[in-house]
Amino acid sequence: MIGKIHKQMSHDSWLFSKMATPEYTPFVFLLLLFQSSVWGVPVCQTPQESPTCGYKSCHATKPGMLNVHLVPHTHDDVGWLKTVDQYFYGDRNDIQHAGVQYILDSVVDQLLKNPDRRFIYVETAFFYRWWKQQTDDMQNTVKQLVNEGRLEFVNGGWCMSDEATTHYSAVIDQMTMGLRFLNDTFGHCGRPRVAWHIDPFGHAREHASMFAQMGYDGFFFGRLDYQDRNRRMVAREQEMLWRASESLTPPMADLFTGILPNGYNPPEGFCWDQSCDDPPIRDDPDLEDYNVDDVVTRFLHIAHGQALVYKTNHIIMTMGSDFQYENANLWYKNLDKLIRYVNQMQSNGSEVNVLYSTPSCYLQELHRANLTWPLKGDDFFPYADSAHDFWTGYFTSRPALKRYERISNSYLQTCKQLEVLGGPISRKGPFGAGDSETLKKAMAVAQHHDAVSGTEKQHVANDYARKLANGWAHCQVLVSNTLSSLSGSSAPRVYCEHLNISVCPLTETMNVYNPLARPVSWPVRLPVNGTAYSISDAKGKVVPVSQATAAVRQGRGYAVNELLFQVQAPPLGYSTYSVSLLQNGPPSPPSPLPRAPKAVQNKVWVLWYNASDGNNSESIQMSGAYIFRPNTSTPFIISKTAKIETLQNSVVQEVRQWFSPWVSQVVRLYTDSRALELEWTVGPVPIGDDLGKEVISRLDSSINSSGVFYTDSNGREVLQRRKDYRPTWNLRQSEPIAGNYYPINSRAYIKDDKDQLTVVTDRSQGGGSIQDGSLEIMLHRRLLYDDVRGVGEPLNETSDIYPEGLVVRGRHLLSLSPPATAADTHRPLAQEVVLQPSSMDFEKEFSGLQAVLPPAVHLLTVSQWDQDTVLLRLEHQYQASESKEHSQPVTVNLQKLFSTLDVLGVSEMNLSANQWKDEMTRLDWKAESGTHHTGVTNQLCLLSPLGRMKTADLL
Amino acid sequence: MIGKIHKQMSHDSWLFSKMATPEYTPFVFLLLLFQSSVWGVPVCQTPQESPTCGYKSCHATKPGMLNVHLVPHTHDDVGWLKTVDQYFYGDRNDIQHAGVQYILDSVVDQLLKNPDRRFIYVETAFFYRWWKQQTDDMQNTVKQLVNEGRLEFVNGGWCMSDEATTHYSAVIDQMTMGLRFLNDTFGHCGRPRVAWHIDPFGHAREHASMFAQMGYDGFFFGRLDYQDRNRRMVAREQEMLWRASESLTPPMADLFTGILPNGYNPPEGFCWDQSCDDPPIRDDPDLEDYNVDDVVTRFLHIAHGQALVYKTNHIIMTMGSDFQYENANLWYKNLDKLIRYVNQMQSNGSEVNVLYSTPSCYLQELHRANLTWPLKGDDFFPYADSAHDFWTGYFTSRPALKRYERISNSYLQTCKQLEVLGGPISRKGPFGAGDSETLKKAMAVAQHHDAVSGTEKQHVANDYARKLANGWAHCQVLVSNTLSSLSGSSAPRVYCEHLNISVCPLTETMNVYNPLARPVSWPVRLPVNGTAYSISDAKGKVVPVSQATAAVRQGRGYAVNELLFQVQAPPLGYSTYSVSLLQNGPPSPPSPLPRAPKAVQNKVWVLWYNASDGNNSESIQMSGAYIFRPNTSTPFIISKTAKIETLQNSVVQEVRQWFSPWVSQVVRLYTDSRALELEWTVGPVPIGDDLGKEVISRLDSSINSSGVFYTDSNGREVLQRRKDYRPTWNLRQSEPIAGNYYPINSRAYIKDDKDQLTVVTDRSQGGGSIQDGSLEIMLHRRLLYDDVRGVGEPLNETSDIYPEGLVVRGRHLLSLSPPATAADTHRPLAQEVVLQPSSMDFEKEFSGLQAVLPPAVHLLTVSQWDQDTVLLRLEHQYQASESKEHSQPVTVNLQKLFSTLDVLGVSEMNLSANQWKDEMTRLDWKAESGTHHTGVTNQLCLLSPLGRMKTADLL
Repeated sequence: MIGKIHKQMSHDSWLFSKMATPEYTPFVFLLLLFQSSVWGVPVCQTPQESPTCGYKSCHATKPGMLNVHLVPHTHDDVGWLKTVDQYFYGDRNDIQHAGVQYILDSVVDQLLKNPDRRFIYVETAFFYRWWKQQTDDMQNTVKQLVNEGRLEFVNGGWCMSDEATTHYSAVIDQMTMGLRFLNDTFGHCGRPRVAWHIDPFGHAREHASMFAQMGYDGFFFGRLDYQDRNRRMVAREQEMLWRASESLTPPMADLFTGILPNGYNPPEGFCWDQSCDDPPIRDDPDLEDYNVDDVVTRFLHIAHGQALVYKTNHIIMTMGSDFQYENANLWYKNLDKLIRYVNQMQSNGSEVNVLYSTPSCYLQELHRANLTWPLKGDDFFPYADSAHDFWTGYFTSRPALKRYERISNSYLQTCKQLEVLGGPISRKGPFGAGDSETLKKAMAVAQHHDAVSGTEKQHVANDYARKLANGWAHCQVLVSNTLSSLSGSSAPRVYCEHLNISVCPLTETMNVYNPLARPVSWPVRLPVNGTAYSISDAKGKVVPVSQATAAVRQGRGYAVNELLFQVQAPPLGYSTYSVSLLQNGPPSPPSPLPRAPKAVQNKVWVLWYNASDGNNSESIQMSGAYIFRPNTSTPFIISKTAKIETLQNSVVQEVRQWFSPWVSQVVRLYTDSRALELEWTVGPVPIGDDLGKEVISRLDSSINSSGVFYTDSNGREVLQRRKDYRPTWNLRQSEPIAGNYYPINSRAYIKDDKDQLTVVTDRSQGGGSIQDGSLEIMLHRRLLYDDVRGVGEPLNETSDIYPEGLVVRGRHLLSLSPPATAADTHRPLAQEVVLQPSSMDFEKEFSGLQAVLPPAVHLLTVSQWDQDTVLLRLEHQYQASESKEHSQPVTVNLQKLFSTLDVLGVSEMNLSANQWKDEMTRLDWKAESGTHHTGVTNQLCLLSPLGRMKTADLL
Repeated sequence: MIGKIHKQMSHDSWLFSKMATPEYTPFVFLLLLFQSSVWGVPVCQTPQESPTCGYKSCHATKPGMLNVHLVPHTHDDVGWLKTVDQYFYGDRNDIQHAGVQYILDSVVDQLLKNPDRRFIYVETAFFYRWWKQQTDDMQNTVKQLVNEGRLEFVNGGWCMSDEATTHYSAVIDQMTMGLRFLNDTFGHCGRPRVAWHIDPFGHAREHASMFAQMGYDGFFFGRLDYQDRNRRMVAREQEMLWRASESLTPPMADLFTGILPNGYNPPEGFCWDQSCDDPPIRDDPDLEDYNVDDVVTRFLHIAHGQALVYKTNHIIMTMGSDFQYENANLWYKNLDKLIRYVNQMQSNGSEVNVLYSTPSCYLQELHRANLTWPLKGDDFFPYADSAHDFWTGYFTSRPALKRYERISNSYLQTCKQLEVLGGPISRKGPFGAGDSETLKKAMAVAQHHDAVSGTEKQHVANDYARKLANGWAHCQVLVSNTLSSLSGSSAPRVYCEHLNISVCPLTETMNVYNPLARPVSWPVRLPVNGTAYSISDAKGKVVPVSQATAAVRQGRGYAVNELLFQVQAPPLGYSTYSVSLLQNGPPSPPSPLPRAPKAVQNKVWVLWYNASDGNNSESIQMSGAYIFRPNTSTPFIISKTAKIETLQNSVVQEVRQWFSPWVSQVVRLYTDSRALELEWTVGPVPIGDDLGKEVISRLDSSINSSGVFYTDSNGREVLQRRKDYRPTWNLRQSEPIAGNYYPINSRAYIKDDKDQLTVVTDRSQGGGSIQDGSLEIMLHRRLLYDDVRGVGEPLNETSDIYPEGLVVRGRHLLSLSPPATAADTHRPLAQEVVLQPSSMDFEKEFSGLQAVLPPAVHLLTVSQWDQDTVLLRLEHQYQASESKEHSQPVTVNLQKLFSTLDVLGVSEMNLSANQWKDEMTRLDWKAESGTHHTGVTNQLCLLSPLGRMKTADLL
């Protein structure tokens, strides 16, 4: 990746001067740390002799005709009904027939048989596995196919990420990993031009923004609300320009976006995969059932019909589907015939021209049409495929997996940082061979739209978790090696991962690593068996400690008590605390609570919806892994009264509430904290009554929210939501609860002129504001029926540890502020939850940064790129106009960033680091003036202090 | 096919001198008729440079090890659940996923990837369809694969024929067609060395005899009685020498026969087809579920287990099954790995060597073992796969299709004869383009083991019938052209095919063509609407006629009456009769019958078994298309009394009996006939009582048959059967009726010292002798359940014409003779039923033969081979010793055979005409002395006057 345009550091380039405008985009750099022989190997090079890949490799079309672009493709889920490796090998075909190794074998064979044929491949997690097993000959053959544009990569991330439940930092990481593999392997011709999210269940604006910043020219997907689709078909608005950021200056986050005609399937009657039953083309007149005329007639009918709902004389047909092309001959043999016989009709006056194509070739023709396109400003959530079928359940499904994925991201960032700070010894040191690669890959597959989404089978969810745990183990060796190197000690290191269930063996020192670029203060809970301890910081100063009580841990884990104290850690650095046992014995009783914390004046309920069971009828939708459908719009109260304990000391004030044996809550206010913590514990959800339950936490306040609330998009920009309303069409609301749910990745809020109530979550969850002043967030779901979207299992989680049903615990951080300063609280608060400190055994204080970064700057990525270089992403973390203090230009000095590393050179990259920033030349698209829905959106934006853009900006 | 060794006719070779010994084998000749430029093109040549195909192409084995021969193969039914063309194209995959075009595409691709790989292909009907569609390049590629033995044809007939319900003449034809295509296309290397009947439901001795005479070195199959298999496994007698004729001198009909270890499937856990779910070999240690050790261990365990039940240190594994290898990559990729990893274990001391192989390579190793093999003298009927699961129903299933197939064979022989006699004008003449090829192909596919067997789905049975009808239409043009040529007239010809349902438009002349090589006398029934007619022969002589009555035709067809008269026709020739209407009006009443015909002293019943319905339990076997399982062993009487009409005139004596609205019978004795005719009409079988019915005709006589009866094998040699007994093992009889049923293709008999009662059938049927002196034959079956052997339909035939259920009519010809002379009657009688005269409009008398052949000689085949040559098959039609008069040497003069054709040269061929007779060099095999079961068989043989061989002959 490192190459020719890399600049040596000079006085002019020390300053990260582009941050002077708060563009709210991560700035991505490759930093040269060492001048070695490897330096200068070009990978992402601009080819000297341009191969005929990309737009140049497209087949000619016929201007006067209707051109039908046939796009052979396979959709290979990186885990769903089977694990990713089962899918790769074709194992467990009893569950689902699918074997990706064979798909790639077969497609390459078939592409070689006819140079006209095309294929696109999407999921680099699979392609990588396959590539590793190929001979040099085969690798060279494939390179040739790629260089000639016959095999084209689209999307190209490690997986096709979920859009509702992923965090942008993990999505950028997985895209970067996949695109880097393609760049390293194929160079210029391996860089995808098109983003391709044909299966995710709704589409996030932040994803579109990221794709634009990654250099994609266009974006295609398959799923959107059925009402939205119907309107767009009539209005020929299935292709549009998505303006995906309210902060970035157009066209920086503009992305041409197309809706595919049949989801991602072929038109009816034209599926020739081995998994389909459509009649093959029987063109031997000596045999029975010659059907060429019938096939051609049906195809022309479909093509003409499709042309009516699109704008140009080009239409696209996706010829493939889930795990298709395992025997590509079936598809190509019949497609060859289809093309031949349909085009033969041109001599009889037919004006339909059909050709092998790719999404980028189709996109190129749309661009050449030189039309204006409707503008889209909001997102595509929630997704409903029918009146009572809202895919809003998966926003919350598998809450434990969602949390594990989120803390794994945090640990991965720590691991990558320590790999850079530790240098080569981190990967091979006194504790053995460690790596960040394993956790990177585990995190990358976990971003898949049937992974962190919670819509996979149970055994597959277990596999994702197992992969993450394996990644942690590899990182732990790396971290130990780094710490050993930094401290000069090789004493055994002990990790205390499962603070909620285990007794940490720490007895003398307690250390915290902080992956953020600013110092943090953080409450640490240590499970212990003693009752009284003394704790002092690195300088020997005794810190306040909340001595242990057993109450909130009862029934789980091995420790009887826990200690709670605040620790502080420097940017990208460590701090050390000493713990001394003072007394063994029973815990001291909780102190009486003198007063309730202020924000608890608002009511916080835990309630449950009764999940629809379909009334034993196939025509009535049930709640399931994907779909949320409550039987009634009124949730059930678990208990009107709660058993209560209180605690107050110098660290924290707590109210502990037990509503039932399976629902409890701790309300905490830490000393000097900006937020109230609500720690909820739900489970095992009882199902003895045969009722599926979807448990919510509801905050009822007196805020006059006027049907409006706000949710973030992939943890980054915040979008406004209105009850029973969609910005781009006249909604006919048919599900008063589920139809008003949206994904919450990191935060949601309601506000009026005076107050803003913000909830920061510790994982992705679904939620809504059903009543003014109320904000509800779904915590846990336990269901008894499958929702008939393919997963084939009810979402009914149990495990060895929880045979009676999964118990889930999490935190909501509430802050109540004036709207004008709310972001100053929730932005850093959310980052602290996303990148949380890790506890580990280490013996001195250390910071990897020379200085704290400015509060507006988030250090998104520090990652070893290759032997000499480091990938660095810095982002301005405030949305335009959301903070008077922080939505401002800032300046960072790159040379003086790290405390232990010298920066010798720097190159700026696109977001996904697969293109030099100054070589990014995306197709330009014209937006329609006066696109009908943008007026509404912008008027709303203008009402909001968060909206930076005016109508004029959008047009 | 014509080539170098063809001899010019000389005085020495005029005489068909080999017939001097009654070897009871067809002698097959190519006769040179014209000396043209095409003469001398060698096809079936012995190659000058021997390619490395056949035995030479086998992989080396390891003498000291257990060698496991992996045989990749596909079993492609030429019609079953789908029609043959649906199977070829992969149409109607909703019924069954199967597409042969893709199988051949894929296998060729995969063979090219690794020269070690092997594949065998079996069904030429499919291969021919595929070959026609290939480019020259692909054809050359395939020739190369065949020449290198990487693609090997086994069996190689047009289809894999059924063994229970086929007639030998049609089997020889279909084998000849398939093998000729292979010879013409691939020459020497295309000739199969091994017969391969892995799926037929039991095995006929006559098939083995034919295969031996066709030059095969060995024969493998998969299905045999479960008790037989168990005994053979214990005794290591799964491989044997089948002495398949009691008439031919060994080793002429000796055939090495092997029973495959898993039917024709792979061992459990090792099916890697796309249709299977077994785990693939996962050998990438970086991915989950690495399973190489597990796979190798399981494979070694299976191989060692299999070696225990076979004799040599070579074992075979069939790696494939029904319609497998559509995506051959899955199989080969895993087989490559299996071979690699299993053989790698040899360096750790493993003594198992696994290799790609073919049946002929395996056979070669068995031959090299130079062992003696047990001798088998009887056949493999009936087949039971469990105690109550006797596959004896299909002997009778679809009786109408079985009859249509049989008369189509007769018409095809007529058509082929007239193609020879008419010369080129027969194929293109005044009536247009005609051919015998269409009917040849239709007949060839009809021999498939799910075609004439009656075990296909209804729509597929309809397709076979449609194909036959199409073949008839093409032949009719050919026949018209020939007749036009022979008579010099081109007046329109009218065929009267459906004498049982239509009114023939003939008004003046009535002609009969006789395809036999001797003159025949034949009763002709003409459907008419008048009541009195006069009929005279070609010389103007009035012949006796039974004037029409309506009774037996009531309710069906358009004619009210029918005429009956005897016609005579010369060998391979025509005779003409004139028909004149004398009177219109009501039919004359039948005359009283003065006396019952002699043989009717024996009782003939029509009865029915109640088919088992499985009692709604999956564990209880039901009757179905394959399986006959009566609920009780006592059949139900339809009626103890019958409505009777009688008729007697100079042509015939008749008793017409109506037992019920759905069962009637006509008992006829023609003047001077050697046999009593029983014409049965059954249907629509009532099912309003929800009882499936299997209708039999039972003849009860006073013959002291002592538990023994006799049935023919494929219409040729006759085998002895004993009740509740099998010659090769101690039978535990579990089905007293179904377990005593055997296939009857043309005749069955019982006898004692004085009398033999022989029944000649007009189609294949099942039957048995349950009580001494009794012989029962199943006529029709109507069932309400599927028997769970795959066809997935109950055998419940209806049609547009018979919406209430199929009505079937047929004839049994009974003769009662002293045993010593019985064959003199039933041999010619059966041939007259098999090759029946055709009625057609033609205006002179003509015979294609110069003279009548001797009575012992049957002209089996006269067929145009190519422009200059004709294929001729002559056979001695008497079994050794069965007739004092006819089981004797005879001599035929080939030069003076035909009346209109000169024979210029002659070459003798093997039975299937794909090898010069003098180049037939089959592998020689040694039989064990004292093989235990032959003693029993021969003792029985010696008791019978039919047995020619003594024990000494067999050993």
